[in-house]
Amino acid sequence: MKQLQEKILTDGKVLSESVLKVDSFLNHQIDPSLMHEIGDEFAARFGNEAITKILTIESSGIAPAVMLGLNLGVPVVFARKRKSLTLVDQLYTASVHSFTKNETNEISVSKDFIKSDDVVLIIDDFLANGQAALGLVDIVEQADAALAGIGIVIEKGFQTGGSMIRNRGIRVESLAIISSMANGKVEFHQEVPSV
Amino acid sequence: MKQLQEKILTDGKVLSESVLKVDSFLNHQIDPSLMHEIGDEFAARFGNEAITKILTIESSGIAPAVMLGLNLGVPVVFARKRKSLTLVDQLYTASVHSFTKNETNEISVSKDFIKSDDVVLIIDDFLANGQAALGLVDIVEQADAALAGIGIVIEKGFQTGGSMIRNRGIRVESLAIISSMANGKVEFHQEVPSV
Repeated sequence: MKQLQEKILTDGKVLSESVLKVDSFLNHQIDPSLMHEIGDEFAARFGNEAITKILTIESSGIAPAVMLGLNLGVPVVFARKRKSLTLVDQLYTASVHSFTKNETNEISVSKDFIKSDDVVLIIDDFLANGQAALGLVDIVEQADAALAGIGIVIEKGFQTGGSMIRNRGIRVESLAIISSMANGKVEFHQEVPSV
Repeated sequence: MKQLQEKILTDGKVLSESVLKVDSFLNHQIDPSLMHEIGDEFAARFGNEAITKILTIESSGIAPAVMLGLNLGVPVVFARKRKSLTLVDQLYTASVHSFTKNETNEISVSKDFIKSDDVVLIIDDFLANGQAALGLVDIVEQADAALAGIGIVIEKGFQTGGSMIRNRGIRVESLAIISSMANGKVEFHQEVPSV
């Protein structure tokens, strides 16, 4: 997605060969217009999948997921990273380790909101080692729902998550795939036209 | 806002005289179409305020804030409840106690994203005792930015936050104000037409 790649190049900050900070439009400050475009792009890629529910994880997945949900006319569910006192039973849970934050979170989704007749599309902001995405896949499987695929805003193509998940036969669509951040310079995989 | 009141009556769950669960459309599952309407309603109420930035707090404030940001064409910043390793300095911080979760969080916003020439509108999902809203006001004041007001999706009018904040001369617009949840029944304040 050309507009997203340009935004990453102009506003992203490469902190190391593996850490990209996009706090100015995705992870802390949010560019609603870009999120709207991202939602439309996900809809174009997954719109023929009869999706009934979008599943994401708090907090940075919510904005792109809600814009996609508006486009497709389906609800969004965000997995919580901690249990809330008003939501203590009837949960699907999975453990997700964040290498960035060096911590393991229990993520949870109420059984009320993912059912076995749902066709679920997972949306997340980043795909690196794939732990968050796999935790969400785990929850979809626990619910015995169908998984339409995974839509990612920014994939770190030089990390193993993307290939690991695709090797499981899961469709992954990433709107920007970074091939390298060596020497402080972001380089993208060439855009492969969708079939 | 009539559509929101109806949604609360049909889909909200009164867990006690003070706890309303709206996990099916706002706090866990999100209704994107309703969020879009909510964004439009906030825009109608605050659209003449020359707002340059919307400030909310993760996670449930993000969806309505981003829809409002899309309408007004301005960025959204969400305060974080914990510091991230990629964002350790240059922060405005405030302490916020949650009575629901019985915990105090440090909330933080990067100094990069709220500046002294900003006109900030605060958006949040709930207003009860007002602690979260006051934490966000504190951050706007630390930034020496102008505060246009506070937009709330659901206000618990029987708790003290709303009057405490309005008594400070801050404009608060709540799209649904609950006057009572006694006997498991939600009752609303009569809608007062905006001047």
